[in-house]
Parts: sequence; C-alpha cells; structure tokens
Amino acid sequence: MSSQRRSLADPRQSEYRILHEADLRDYLAKFPEIASRLGGSPASWSISEVGDGNLNLVFIVKGTTGGIAVKQALPYVRLVGESWPLPLSRSHYEYLALTHQAQLAPGLVPAVLHHNDALALVVMELLELHIIMRKGMVAGTIYPRFVQDITTFLARTLFLSSDLAVSAAEKKEGIAAFAGNHALCKITEDLIFTDPYRVAEQNRWTAPWLDATAAAFREDLDLHVAISRLKLKFLNAPEALIHGDLHTGSIMVTENETKVIDPEFAFYGPMGFDIGAVIANLLMAYLASSGHERAPGERRAFEAWVLGTIEGVWTEFARKFLELWRIEAKGDAYPVMLFEGEAGAARLEAERQVYMARLFEDTVGFSAAKIIRRILGLAHNIDFELIEDPKRRAVCEARSLRLARAMMVDVALFRSIGDVTKAARKVRGWRPDFA
Amino acid sequence: MSSQRRSLADPRQSEYRILHEADLRDYLAKFPEIASRLGGSPASWSISEVGDGNLNLVFIVKGTTGGIAVKQALPYVRLVGESWPLPLSRSHYEYLALTHQAQLAPGLVPAVLHHNDALALVVMELLELHIIMRKGMVAGTIYPRFVQDITTFLARTLFLSSDLAVSAAEKKEGIAAFAGNHALCKITEDLIFTDPYRVAEQNRWTAPWLDATAAAFREDLDLHVAISRLKLKFLNAPEALIHGDLHTGSIMVTENETKVIDPEFAFYGPMGFDIGAVIANLLMAYLASSGHERAPGERRAFEAWVLGTIEGVWTEFARKFLELWRIEAKGDAYPVMLFEGEAGAARLEAERQVYMARLFEDTVGFSAAKIIRRILGLAHNIDFELIEDPKRRAVCEARSLRLARAMMVDVALFRSIGDVTKAARKVRGWRPDFA
Repeated sequence: MSSQRRSLADPRQSEYRILHEADLRDYLAKFPEIASRLGGSPASWSISEVGDGNLNLVFIVKGTTGGIAVKQALPYVRLVGESWPLPLSRSHYEYLALTHQAQLAPGLVPAVLHHNDALALVVMELLELHIIMRKGMVAGTIYPRFVQDITTFLARTLFLSSDLAVSAAEKKEGIAAFAGNHALCKITEDLIFTDPYRVAEQNRWTAPWLDATAAAFREDLDLHVAISRLKLKFLNAPEALIHGDLHTGSIMVTENETKVIDPEFAFYGPMGFDIGAVIANLLMAYLASSGHERAPGERRAFEAWVLGTIEGVWTEFARKFLELWRIEAKGDAYPVMLFEGEAGAARLEAERQVYMARLFEDTVGFSAAKIIRRILGLAHNIDFELIEDPKRRAVCEARSLRLARAMMVDVALFRSIGDVTKAARKVRGWRPDFA
Repeated sequence: MSSQRRSLADPRQSEYRILHEADLRDYLAKFPEIASRLGGSPASWSISEVGDGNLNLVFIVKGTTGGIAVKQALPYVRLVGESWPLPLSRSHYEYLALTHQAQLAPGLVPAVLHHNDALALVVMELLELHIIMRKGMVAGTIYPRFVQDITTFLARTLFLSSDLAVSAAEKKEGIAAFAGNHALCKITEDLIFTDPYRVAEQNRWTAPWLDATAAAFREDLDLHVAISRLKLKFLNAPEALIHGDLHTGSIMVTENETKVIDPEFAFYGPMGFDIGAVIANLLMAYLASSGHERAPGERRAFEAWVLGTIEGVWTEFARKFLELWRIEAKGDAYPVMLFEGEAGAARLEAERQVYMARLFEDTVGFSAAKIIRRILGLAHNIDFELIEDPKRRAVCEARSLRLARAMMVDVALFRSIGDVTKAARKVRGWRPDFA
C-alpha cells in the first residue's frame, strides 16, 4: 500500500508521540495566544480526554477564562486498535479542510487556533454549549436553525469549490492538495461501497431478525450494480471539496447554532455524497424514532419536524446553490459568455435545473448507501443502537433497509425530495415478516 | 494566474536557456550513451531544427551510427510568440506521460533516452522512416496497421490507468502528479470548448463561405449547452491518463509501425476525449478527401479505407478494452467479489456494455468538438488547409460542421459507430447553399 510506504518514509513521524495530560499541558503553555485564551497558570488548567469517535484522541482543556478542544490523530483506528494502522497525515487534511471551509462558510465550523502536522494535532475553539446532533435527535430534540445552517454550509462549501466557481487551475491544485488523503477515502470505499454487499468479517447486524435481509442484499445484483456505479462516482468525480463524513455525529448543535466538525475524510469528490449523508442520517433518525417511544405517538412532533427537515435540506440547498450559481459563477464551467441575451439566460437557467436533477439523483443514491452501511456494515449509529429491545430495533432497521434499497435501485421513483419523504412515511407503517 | 506564479517562482527556470546548435552539441556530448548511439565525434554530428508544431523546438541529430530527436519546450507558444507565455513544466509532463505510456503500451511511443526538466528537454529515439500520419492521409496513403496499433494504445493506456485497473490510492497519486499541467489543459478548455462558439479574436474560418455557419454556431444554444456539458466532463472526470491531443498530427506511421508522440497535454481526464480525437481526425480526413481529388473518384479506395478505419477504431478499441476488463480488473471500481457465480458474471458483463455505451456517447461528443474547433477556431488542419481553392475547401468544411453539429446535439441518433460512418457518408454528398 502506497499510503503505508508514504507514512513510513515521512520524517515528521519521528517527532510524533501520543500526548498525555502533562505532556499536552507543557506543549500548550508554549503558545501565548492559547495560554491567554485559557487564562490562569498552566498548572490550573483542567484537561480531560473525551474522544468517543472511532479514530482519535480529543482533549477538553479549560482554564480560568476559556476553553479549547485539542484533537490528536492516532496512528491506528481507535475503534479497532493497532492492528488497523491509519496515517497521521489525516490531521493535516482535517486542518486544510477546516480552514478552507471556514473561508467558504464562515461561522459554521469551529475556529482553528493552532495545528501541528508532526504531532497530528489540531487545536480548536471549544464548543461548550453544543451537543452532537445525533444525541439530541435520539432524545427527540428539534433544532429550528438546522436547515438554514446546514444548507448554507453545503451550498457554499460545495458550490464555491466547484468548477462553477473556481478556475480549472485552482481546482486542480485543490484536488492535488487532498490527493494524499487516500487512506481515509479507502475506508469509505470499503466500508460503504463494498463490504455491506459481501461476506466481510467486520459486518454486523441485528441477528437473527435481519439475517435474511443481509443475505438477500449480498445476492441482490440490482443493488450490486447500483452500489458499484456509486462507487465509481466516488472514485471518479472530483466535483467539489467534500466533507466526506457528514453524518449527524459530525454536526454539533445548540438551538441557535450549528457547527460542522471532523472533516478528516475531506477530499475532492461528488457533491451528492455530502448532501446524501445529511439526508440519510435524518431518514435514520426518523425511522429509528418509534424505537425510542415510551408512549405511542409521543415523538410525533419530532418525527414531523424530521420529515420537514429532510425536505428543507434539499430544497434550501438547491435554492442557495442556484442563487450562488446565478451571482458567483466565476469558474471555468458553463461560461456565461456562451449564454448571452435573454434567450441565452433562459437556456442556462434550464440547464441549471438539469444539473440539479442529476445532483438530486446522486444524492438519493449516496443517501441510500449511507443507510445500508450503518445497518449491515461495521460502523453503526446510536439512533438504532440505543433501542434496547433488539427486535424492536430490527423493525426500525428493516424499514430503513427497505427504503434504502428502493432509493438505490428504483431511481426513477424518486424524482423529488417529496418522493423520498413520502416513501419514508409509507415504510414507517410497514411491518416486516418477523414483527 | 497561478500557472504564471508557479513558473516565475520555479528555481529551475534560472537554468533554462534556449538551445542552439553548438550548445546542444556540447550538451549531448556529455552523455556517453547518447554519444555512442550517435557514433563518431560530436563535431561530425549533423543537427537541424525541424519543429513544425505550434509550441516547441525539435532538433534532429544524426551521427555515423544513429540518430536522435531532441524536443525543447519554449517559454511561449511558438505559433504566436512571446506574447503568449506557456510554462516550461509541460516538458516534465510530456516526459512523465511518455514513460508511463511506454510501460502501458510497449512499442507504441518513442523511447525516451534522456530528459532534463530544467532545460525543458526530452531526448528520444529518432523515428527516421515514419511520417506524420496527417501528411500521409492528405496524400491518400492507406495504413493497414493503424487500427490494430492505435486501438492497442487507446485500450491499454486508458484501461490500465483507470479505476478498473489500479487502486484508488495509485490513481489519486497519478492525478496529483499531472495536476500541475493545468496551463496546457486551459488551452484545450479555451480553444476547443469555448472560443469556437463565441466571438474570439483568434478564431478564423474560410470566409466568406462559412460566415453564416460560424455566426449560426455562435447563436446556437443547443450547441452551447452540449459543448458546456462536454467541457464540464473535461474539467471533472479524471477517468484515466489521457494523451490529451491525439490527432493525426500526433501520430507517426510507416506501413508497419505506429508511434504516438507529443503527449504534453497529458493529464487525468475523460477517456472519450482521446478516442474522440482519433475519430474526429479520421472523419476530417474523409470529408477533406474530395478536396484533394485531381480526378473524380481517384481517392475512392482511400476514402473507403478511412470509413472502415473509423469503424475499426471504435470496435477494436471496445473489444480490447473489454478484454482487459475481463482479465486485468485489479482496480477498486466494480469489485468482482460483488459479481460472483454465473449470474453475477452475466450481470457484470451486461454492466460493462452499459459502461461502453456511455463511453461511446462521450466519444461522439468529444469527436464533434474536435472537428468544430479545427474549422472555426484558432488551430486548423492541413487536411483542409492544403485544399487550395477556398470555396472547394469551404464545401468540405461545411460538410464536416454539419456532421459535427448533429453528433453533438442529436446524441440519440448516434448509437453505434455505424451510425457515425453512415452519417459521414451521407454528408459527403450534401451540397451547402453556397456550392
């Protein structure tokens, strides 16, 4: 593997060490702007490691006047251990993505205060009041700002890094800058686009109830063609700088603010992968919701909000993306000089709608892929995992798989976001054989 | 422009000087393997500058026992002069492409003997017996090896650098290695995908006969949408390492050998651009042929051979590409593990046909774009230019434009290569209004 070759040959790696509390305290004390933000003497700072993700260490550091979050990459997958090495360089790409996203979508990512590629370290503002959106949704919390913020993030980061907004030269430089992040892409290629559809040791699902569906998905050639086409697009379509892992566990929220975190999977890829990730995780929150009910109908308002949010994510994204296209089309694609006059403008506008229809189709397909991997693959969601009764969980998961399969294979049935929410509402009432 | 920033900042540039005969003699004499290939004393070597392309210096050096070709990039476009600067780094990309193509398609590119990025210099074997294919075709010469060789070149260089054959990591490294060649890509983006469809100072055509058609093409919004979609694909689809300029002026032939030269436009782009370039130039040779007739019907056998060659280029390319896919599918796309057993194999085979149909559609579109730029844009072909009577030339060109417009806009009418040759044969008999 060339990624391994590269990381072994990387001279920076010799400076790397896994930071422990005392070590981190000494390190941070060297930077006046960090020390002054924290306040008080370094000895007085509280430091705790809180990382609950799959890959990294995360420290919360608090002083007398403020706090920071410190994220350090480990040279292996934390969830699995040293047997699954992963390049430290992902911290460099996370830093690159965070700073680029901050320019494109101000206020929607945590501010970076410091970074150190050798230590695979990024220091960020502390989001003290925010919680991981997925946790809030498991609890049935409604986030009224979410549609507005996430669609601004999506429309601006995707449009403004695409060929519609930047020169071909700048775009190629961007693609090259992220090309080295292929080990993280490979995780996606395997865990999302391949493993759930074959016998793979790391796969798991809610047995025995989903055994038959898992087996059927491994034999379903319509699905295998569809996922392979999506994989080819993931490999082959550097449309924009995408976050690459934009599920509700990568979004921190309060009722008034939204911050997108953890872009270590960032690279130039298909836009629909990010939009689809958001929609997939909302669909799962919707279909998992009945599993968290303590009394029938208790979460009805929440569920209605989720469905409205799904519709809002696409429609507001599309509206903002098109608005940017009409006013910020400084890229090399679709040169306006070929669409002059009234007739030209009308024709370009029609072509924009064709572009959006294609992007919607991608979004639906990637969304389905993201659902299936969370139920039949390695990494699962607390949306489902926190449903204690496994049979009840399996019902929610089976409904999600049924919807996802239709979205991936029966593409022609999903022409608008309303088709998606309608199908979700319908499958919510479906009873699997085992139920 | 970032390409300019880069070349100004490039420390290698200070070592660069334009080589003259004496200078080149001294330089070459320093390399024993070159000196021994040439034979005799350096003073006895004959050196002549023969470059007739648009961009570079080309020296033929001959000694007592052998010869070499030396290609040096100029810091500007030779055709236009110092007012149009162009980075010397293109020589580096040409070297990279030549050596990679030599591995993928042995024997079909000239062997590289030496290169020097600082001097923007590549030294190659001398192709003494070969002539530029375009010249041979203007003279009506038939090349019986051509289909076999060019389809081996196309199938092997495209398939073996694609996601079907290499890992995603290796592919991303390749894309990054060529990302810096964006100034050459920009020439294509402007001269092929934009300028022929708008008022641009550098455009020219055979006036006054083509004035009306040129004006119509500048107003034709169907065409503008189609060319913009092709441009987006050129910007956005790094399917394989493409040659990037594969016209019949970049192919040297004898009756028994074919060599593809001049890959300085190489980058990771859409496969159909290379296949389309070959087919476009054959179509132009076919439709220009009547302009070179001294007696009616004189070139009938040649023209029949050209049409057969067009069909052969697609069908043999497709056959070889599919054969490679069946036996060398070591890439990350379409993993065979998702298509196991007899039913899986049959389904993957069906999907391969779908893939080829999409690639054919791209090929037809890019082919049309390459024809239009040669008639309404900056750079013209001797196929047409050597037709002395301008009205007679305009007739050939008008037929070519008519065919190209249909290929780009009426995509659905061109389902097979037979549809293309049939349309070419039909347009060959069409008389423009002015004729």
